[in-house]
Amino acid sequence: MDDVSPTKWHLAHTTWFFDIFILKPLGKQVASPLFSRLFNSYYNAVGSQHPRGKRGFLSRPRLEEIYDYRNRVDDLILESEIEIHSSTELTRLFELGIQHEEQHQELMLMDIKHVLGTNPLYPRYGAPPWGEQKEDASSNPTGKQSNQEKWQRFDELNLQIGSNFESFAFDNEGPQHNRFIPSFKLYPMLVSNDNYLDFIRDGGYDNHRLWLSEGWSWVRLNEIDSPLYWQREHRDAEWQEYTLNGNAPLDLSAPVAHISYFEADAFATWAGARLPSEFELERAFQSNAKGDSEANPGTMLEQQQGFRWQWTQSSYQPYPGFRATPDAVGEYNGKFMVNQYVLKGSSTLTPPQHSRATYRNFFPTHSRWVMNGLRLAQD
Amino acid sequence: MDDVSPTKWHLAHTTWFFDIFILKPLGKQVASPLFSRLFNSYYNAVGSQHPRGKRGFLSRPRLEEIYDYRNRVDDLILESEIEIHSSTELTRLFELGIQHEEQHQELMLMDIKHVLGTNPLYPRYGAPPWGEQKEDASSNPTGKQSNQEKWQRFDELNLQIGSNFESFAFDNEGPQHNRFIPSFKLYPMLVSNDNYLDFIRDGGYDNHRLWLSEGWSWVRLNEIDSPLYWQREHRDAEWQEYTLNGNAPLDLSAPVAHISYFEADAFATWAGARLPSEFELERAFQSNAKGDSEANPGTMLEQQQGFRWQWTQSSYQPYPGFRATPDAVGEYNGKFMVNQYVLKGSSTLTPPQHSRATYRNFFPTHSRWVMNGLRLAQD
Amino acid sequence: MDDVSPTKWHLAHTTWFFDIFILKPLGKQVASPLFSRLFNSYYNAVGSQHPRGKRGFLSRPRLEEIYDYRNRVDDLILESEIEIHSSTELTRLFELGIQHEEQHQELMLMDIKHVLGTNPLYPRYGAPPWGEQKEDASSNPTGKQSNQEKWQRFDELNLQIGSNFESFAFDNEGPQHNRFIPSFKLYPMLVSNDNYLDFIRDGGYDNHRLWLSEGWSWVRLNEIDSPLYWQREHRDAEWQEYTLNGNAPLDLSAPVAHISYFEADAFATWAGARLPSEFELERAFQSNAKGDSEANPGTMLEQQQGFRWQWTQSSYQPYPGFRATPDAVGEYNGKFMVNQYVLKGSSTLTPPQHSRATYRNFFPTHSRWVMNGLRLAQD
Amino acid sequence: MDDVSPTKWHLAHTTWFFDIFILKPLGKQVASPLFSRLFNSYYNAVGSQHPRGKRGFLSRPRLEEIYDYRNRVDDLILESEIEIHSSTELTRLFELGIQHEEQHQELMLMDIKHVLGTNPLYPRYGAPPWGEQKEDASSNPTGKQSNQEKWQRFDELNLQIGSNFESFAFDNEGPQHNRFIPSFKLYPMLVSNDNYLDFIRDGGYDNHRLWLSEGWSWVRLNEIDSPLYWQREHRDAEWQEYTLNGNAPLDLSAPVAHISYFEADAFATWAGARLPSEFELERAFQSNAKGDSEANPGTMLEQQQGFRWQWTQSSYQPYPGFRATPDAVGEYNGKFMVNQYVLKGSSTLTPPQHSRATYRNFFPTHSRWVMNGLRLAQD
Repeated sequence: MDDVSPTKWHLAHTTWFFDIFILKPLGKQVASPLFSRLFNSYYNAVGSQHPRGKRGFLSRPRLEEIYDYRNRVDDLILESEIEIHSSTELTRLFELGIQHEEQHQELMLMDIKHVLGTNPLYPRYGAPPWGEQKEDASSNPTGKQSNQEKWQRFDELNLQIGSNFESFAFDNEGPQHNRFIPSFKLYPMLVSNDNYLDFIRDGGYDNHRLWLSEGWSWVRLNEIDSPLYWQREHRDAEWQEYTLNGNAPLDLSAPVAHISYFEADAFATWAGARLPSEFELERAFQSNAKGDSEANPGTMLEQQQGFRWQWTQSSYQPYPGFRATPDAVGEYNGKFMVNQYVLKGSSTLTPPQHSRATYRNFFPTHSRWVMNGLRLAQD
Repeated sequence: MDDVSPTKWHLAHTTWFFDIFILKPLGKQVASPLFSRLFNSYYNAVGSQHPRGKRGFLSRPRLEEIYDYRNRVDDLILESEIEIHSSTELTRLFELGIQHEEQHQELMLMDIKHVLGTNPLYPRYGAPPWGEQKEDASSNPTGKQSNQEKWQRFDELNLQIGSNFESFAFDNEGPQHNRFIPSFKLYPMLVSNDNYLDFIRDGGYDNHRLWLSEGWSWVRLNEIDSPLYWQREHRDAEWQEYTLNGNAPLDLSAPVAHISYFEADAFATWAGARLPSEFELERAFQSNAKGDSEANPGTMLEQQQGFRWQWTQSSYQPYPGFRATPDAVGEYNGKFMVNQYVLKGSSTLTPPQHSRATYRNFFPTHSRWVMNGLRLAQD
Repeated sequence: MDDVSPTKWHLAHTTWFFDIFILKPLGKQVASPLFSRLFNSYYNAVGSQHPRGKRGFLSRPRLEEIYDYRNRVDDLILESEIEIHSSTELTRLFELGIQHEEQHQELMLMDIKHVLGTNPLYPRYGAPPWGEQKEDASSNPTGKQSNQEKWQRFDELNLQIGSNFESFAFDNEGPQHNRFIPSFKLYPMLVSNDNYLDFIRDGGYDNHRLWLSEGWSWVRLNEIDSPLYWQREHRDAEWQEYTLNGNAPLDLSAPVAHISYFEADAFATWAGARLPSEFELERAFQSNAKGDSEANPGTMLEQQQGFRWQWTQSSYQPYPGFRATPDAVGEYNGKFMVNQYVLKGSSTLTPPQHSRATYRNFFPTHSRWVMNGLRLAQD
Repeated sequence: MDDVSPTKWHLAHTTWFFDIFILKPLGKQVASPLFSRLFNSYYNAVGSQHPRGKRGFLSRPRLEEIYDYRNRVDDLILESEIEIHSSTELTRLFELGIQHEEQHQELMLMDIKHVLGTNPLYPRYGAPPWGEQKEDASSNPTGKQSNQEKWQRFDELNLQIGSNFESFAFDNEGPQHNRFIPSFKLYPMLVSNDNYLDFIRDGGYDNHRLWLSEGWSWVRLNEIDSPLYWQREHRDAEWQEYTLNGNAPLDLSAPVAHISYFEADAFATWAGARLPSEFELERAFQSNAKGDSEANPGTMLEQQQGFRWQWTQSSYQPYPGFRATPDAVGEYNGKFMVNQYVLKGSSTLTPPQHSRATYRNFFPTHSRWVMNGLRLAQD
């Protein structure tokens, strides 16, 4: 799968970021031009890149060489502490490098899961320190959606959206700006495997009326009939799901995971609902955070952040007044603002501190190796 | 080109619409099931379709048979006048059928232009009755952008966006709803061929920094170095452009046409501007229509509608509260609301009456056979 | 289908051949460089070509213009009779031009059949003057293969293979050379639709053991389960076959047609036989022609030439001593001598005079729009 | 590259062969069904296979597990020595397993070379025990072709071709049969890098007249302008070639390596020669082996076997009377007998004992990761 990179590539690339954007300006670059080229992901401004799809072929440099590279860069960064802190620019880049590495901590787990989860032996990897399965605890016993009363209602209002950058945020989370948000409702729980099974049993994958036109072609062409890591021996067998803890019977109460935008949208249509906008989710996360009074008493959103990346119907666009920084790091987010959709809320694979209400994750509509699910919205 | 259909297919398909959605309910369907299948475009709900890419192979039915079909359906529609008017539903479908045929009048011209414009003989077709070249008259003499003073400024405000359906509009133009629009500026003229030549001469197609990541791959893969219908004998020759009037030296003062979203975005970046949102253009069209006082005196938008479909940075999404009609016609617009971008303003290929401020045209980012151009925006 | 060209293209291309290879050297070329480029098929030496796959888009020049081109070239050829006959080279090219046009008479019928036969309306074209269905007369009543006695046996011998060019032959039919041919047996009849149905009913398309590895991938990828022009309403319906006379119930006694090399090979394996070599068929045609005594009494090959192009296991290679003529016409055959297989015997779509024992037709293994079938061989 | 498998896959697959075809019949199979499925290459008859292109993703089982598998199978094979020798069938399969492993010893080196040779770091692997570079010794000092006198001439004769199976040979090397071979000439040396450079400098890759039609498309589509492992900094820089000993300046006197059939054929055409047939090479190897008197005195073929796999113009077809064994092992060779070409003579990557005059290697025309070169022939 072209999106998947080998673990050792992630290890080298995250260190390469510090090497190029901090040590290089300090005249302390460690990597050779060639080495550097291998581990550049998409920064055209810093030289040509090794084709992404070919990363899997890089049997060299060996893992030891990459750990050695990491150690040398780490040492030089520590030695350079004063120089870095004495420069706001280098400090900004240092913080960015750490956030960048946290992103790759999740990408690594996604990639490892894909490599192991498509291996017929379904080898166990083991949940990350912060636990892949922790959502089960807080998930409702049946996973079944109950009556409309349970929907949480939000009244229309004008709201400040995005980050004011008082604490760290990526450039794409700002500028903070005013947005009018019409009233809407959200379902308190994420869609569960049990809910999703109902969709499948009801012929959801065979009913073109539920699908976006492009989604219907995608389903047909790729013969999709379940989320990415579900499999069963035969049509009447029980569903199994691969998790980093290995293959196991489908956990009905867990939120559904690893579905494309097309599947999320088709499920929502089937359920008589729709996907929320990125602003509706950001607003809900905020008001729930402050235990906002205007949220109707009795219901509060559960499974907000740290469970599944929640697909939104919002195309990934720049906020009003957004400017990409002119340097190479400026390629960081702005250049991807087309044909991708925003996901909110982070997942059980996300490092816990790497989550906030203004965070905007983004992927193309067919992406399924992301740990993505959905929450239903209604007008 | 898979997007292109033969003229006779358009002739049959637009009539098929009346046959299936009006005559059929009246028990007067003309087309056989097979015939009907051939000329169904994407209405899954009314039976399987003939693959779009294979339409070009339909040497039968012959053109005469299709004209015969059109005549028979037209006669039956006229005969059915009372029945149709006595039903609001049929009246709605009748009006929709006419609007649908107007859309195909433009599609037919787009397709004819593509077939002739990619034929090395560059045969002349002749401009449509309403004239492909009429924009030249009102275009500025040089086409050069002049100083910043010329930009037209719009202050932030809350605005009713979309149609209230008092006059005809497609379902995707509503519901009308309130939207907060931050202040912005628009350039009064569309980007001209002369402007676009400057972009090319400045190495625009070779400078990755100007392009969205996906756009850069698209340019490289397809070896794009100019708008669709531009050609020149050799690198030092003058540019020629194919129009329905045949091949001719590039008209520098005419608005640039037939560029992808990627090219429009790259040009805007190069020009230190951005693409407008669909709301900014709708708002500008409205206020200019009423000669809105808040528009700073001296400048008014020129080349508003009827010149080039203007790419916007707005992904094609449902408006708040949008509901697709449950019947087959409901497939009309809703199912395409993903991975496409909104274009506003209509083109010289658009039937004049088929244009309004709320109109939302939409195409994927790589579409170039549409007569699309762009207008620059700034914060 | 990229292999298929529009009829008018064939009409212009066959005339273009005379224009370029005879009139041009005489200083009488009719076609403009551009016109000429459009109708050049694969002669790189005479300038670049219009992409084959795009021929279908050539709505211009119009049919009338092409007939006009044909008439003007014909007239000039007639006027040039003396000059042509006074040059052995021009005479050779003139004869080649006629043979080339005969080839395209069959290609035209193949292409028309593909266009009409893949049109859901299955329009009737009408058999060529020399009759598509004439084989039925001479085909055996049941089409069933009878007992082994019926096989015709040929003893090993050294034979002169290929043409001595006393009468016209393409360059690839020579040089005539000696070849040792081990003993072999041929089945007197071509494989019939009835025989082929047995193969299908026996699960031939689902049994990987019968297929070449590449053939098995081809069947799976393209979901092939019958010859090209066979269709049936549902799994239990009777098979229909499209012929130029329209769609009709499968004629069990007719030889099977429009199958790939892979299908021919799999059928032969299933039948406990193999495909013949091109030399075995050439030898059989020769000895049957002379009513050769060594053929065991009682059986003679039926359906030899003029029924179906018969796949052979012989890859299309140059004969020992073959030299492509150095000029543009030299591209005629030699450059295709790779990854194609020889077919012998001509078909009911072949102009009758365009058939001889030494004739070597050739197509890639997946080609099915050729009117090809097979005859079984054994050691 | 889909043809390339990871080293550990080869290690497991060659052992899997012994496990399935010898231990399993003895009731001693080691591998689990799943494990077995992973390491089945193309034996449809023994269950479904893991997709070839996805082998690279198999991060599990780990290398240690595979070595463990090899040890357990080796031990069981040794324990079973008597049972194996007491069965001619098992003895045949045992010998086949060893030959099969020798084939994979070369495939492993080919794959390793491709993985390292396409890595921008060009890591050194080190020549195999039997030496990748040993040909240089015996290669002529200049590599230039000298005058025609040097060609070795062979008179026409009838010859026994193929193996009589007195010593081991693969099924595709028989049955031994009589073949008439017209007279021909062979160039004593393989084509050298120096010769091939002349072809490049003479514009060989830009001259369509030299190429087979399919080859010309292949060159254009893949932008090929040199053998697989050649690279240079810029158009005026010296050529480098990657060998298992790392990247080094091109050795002019070494035989050219890693070229497709298309390139070999185009070179031969450029040199006014042709590719030999498989029979011509087998005959030459035989007669030179016996120092055959009829070879004209003074010249003998050099660089016969063990240097480069030599492309022949012979399509890979069954010999007269060839029968694939009915069991799973029968899939070994027969099913590949289409659209591939025979290579003779073995290479410096071939285990020395795995080479003989009757050996028939085969690959598709585009294969370049094979260590293939060519020897010129003439009539």
